Amino acid sequence: MNHTSIPTVSPLNLESKAAIQHKIDQKIKPVGSLGLLESIALKVALIQETEAPEISNPHLFVFAADHGITAEGVSPFPSEVTPQMVLNFLSGGAGINAFANRHGWSLKVVDAGVNFDFEAHPLLVDAKVKKGTGNFLKAPAMSESECLSAFVKASALVQEAKEAGANTIAFGEMGIGNTTTASLLMAKVLGLSGTECAGKGTGANEAIVARKAEVIDLALEKYADLKDPLAILSAMGGLEIAMVCGAMLEAAAQRMLIVVDGFIITSALLMAEQLCPEVLDYCVFAHQSNEQGHQKMLKHFNATPILQLGLRLGEGTGAALALPMIQSAVDFLNQMNSFETGGVATGE
Amino acid sequence: MNHTSIPTVSPLNLESKAAIQHKIDQKIKPVGSLGLLESIALKVALIQETEAPEISNPHLFVFAADHGITAEGVSPFPSEVTPQMVLNFLSGGAGINAFANRHGWSLKVVDAGVNFDFEAHPLLVDAKVKKGTGNFLKAPAMSESECLSAFVKASALVQEAKEAGANTIAFGEMGIGNTTTASLLMAKVLGLSGTECAGKGTGANEAIVARKAEVIDLALEKYADLKDPLAILSAMGGLEIAMVCGAMLEAAAQRMLIVVDGFIITSALLMAEQLCPEVLDYCVFAHQSNEQGHQKMLKHFNATPILQLGLRLGEGTGAALALPMIQSAVDFLNQMNSFETGGVATGE
Repeated sequence: MNHTSIPTVSPLNLESKAAIQHKIDQKIKPVGSLGLLESIALKVALIQETEAPEISNPHLFVFAADHGITAEGVSPFPSEVTPQMVLNFLSGGAGINAFANRHGWSLKVVDAGVNFDFEAHPLLVDAKVKKGTGNFLKAPAMSESECLSAFVKASALVQEAKEAGANTIAFGEMGIGNTTTASLLMAKVLGLSGTECAGKGTGANEAIVARKAEVIDLALEKYADLKDPLAILSAMGGLEIAMVCGAMLEAAAQRMLIVVDGFIITSALLMAEQLCPEVLDYCVFAHQSNEQGHQKMLKHFNATPILQLGLRLGEGTGAALALPMIQSAVDFLNQMNSFETGGVATGE
Repeated sequence: MNHTSIPTVSPLNLESKAAIQHKIDQKIKPVGSLGLLESIALKVALIQETEAPEISNPHLFVFAADHGITAEGVSPFPSEVTPQMVLNFLSGGAGINAFANRHGWSLKVVDAGVNFDFEAHPLLVDAKVKKGTGNFLKAPAMSESECLSAFVKASALVQEAKEAGANTIAFGEMGIGNTTTASLLMAKVLGLSGTECAGKGTGANEAIVARKAEVIDLALEKYADLKDPLAILSAMGGLEIAMVCGAMLEAAAQRMLIVVDGFIITSALLMAEQLCPEVLDYCVFAHQSNEQGHQKMLKHFNATPILQLGLRLGEGTGAALALPMIQSAVDFLNQMNSFETGGVATGE
């Protein structure tokens, strides 16, 4: 892509891969016995270009926005719940507050496009592009310039986090209707039908899931000619999803580790991959959610999620919970003795 | 069982279950959307008999012992690695040190029966019953009185932890040859063959795995008449496994939460269940290891493990890593706002 508002991501430099893998394999343990933690340690070391990586000042941004598609009856919750939940985040009483606090994330809530005027609050960042997307069955959800504006605002937030010392970042979301948006993006990019992508979301019954699938199929037909990823994201996306997409590209450009949350956030990664596939080099996948579409996207990415707790809350909770496993991976790489120095016989 | 050295475990009092579940369901989130964390929160609350549980001063004991069965060529590592690894734990440079330190476990290493004379060390507890078990193909691994002595020593350690304010406990292990011992116990109790239970352990090749299976089948034949769980544990067990078994019964008797580690520790739970099935009320399962037998035991317990990271290191590392998820479960129960007070519309 040639848009100047889209960050350019460099692939990982793999020159030191063998040396890092040797360090992992020389730890006093059977080779490979720390499973997924070993591949996480390798990835973090490659991203940070050091054999002694560290996780510093991790930041978690929860992007919130409203979705015009809620007019089509795709959610059991009314749109008013989006600002109510933002206020709940700001009060400190949501799931993401508890987990971010427990695991040492610096948390910010970002108004990407909520249909509500919030008062200023220390935890709240005003990055509103507009008061919710349009109903994509009637017209594109946003214009391309609105989408690029979301990218620019998101990039600025990531750069601020980087300047504050963050080398690890995650994104959460809140937006009534956004599982339909995410399912549609996924259907379009992966060439699937509405039924293959629509799921229960926050708790839809069978009739609502069927309606979601129907809405997705109608939109696929309406926008069948679109090929350009930016055009697809603008027509079918959400303001929070666009912002996460842009933030991921900026984080990768800044060589930060991206901890990918669940269904909605993974759909944003799917769009980021379309714009710049090297973004994947900087990602670990936090968890496998209970949303059926999420499992299909993880398969597309050939991803092994860190956690499989049956979560389907959103907010970035899966990413927040995965951090202690990532820190543990870094710890074993830095702290464990090696066979070379530890006085323990190998099995050879 | 009527042995006075075997603690008596009371089942959970379920009177408050509905009230705790109501508290969980009223949190501002779709019902059930925190998946496994919800059932963990319920269990901890039931064990502690409060709607506001807490995890305090968690203790992790790593029990180490030698196994006479190593004479039969069942491990790629020599027995000398058992004391070498104990010294590695004491030096602070093992995997379990890194993870215990990261996640706030108070760690102790217990000499349950290592064939080595250790110098005193602040992290080391001397609870040696004897210098390793006998080769169970020749004679019982230990006598019943040695097994009960292991129980008594283990109970004392758990009581000390309780007095130090611990309400959460986990056990790890180190003992070259102990996957064969654990596989045999599992085969005997679940009525399986050597091939169905033997696995790669710390990294055995196919020939060694086949030898493990053969040794297990020979022992099953030798001890075919044994029915009493204490007799089985004595004849076929390990000193560290006996101590973990006794420690689990004591921890349950003291109404502590038991975080069950991987293959070896789960085999100890299998024996504890034979002695007193109520012990299961106090257990959460930390992880599913890569050892095939572990998956079969988890199925026997109808257990949903918290983590599935492909670990096969032992030492208690899986249990150590699961603690932040358990703390998160307790946190959401204590800290999240409810629909009743939080000003967010429900989906009804």
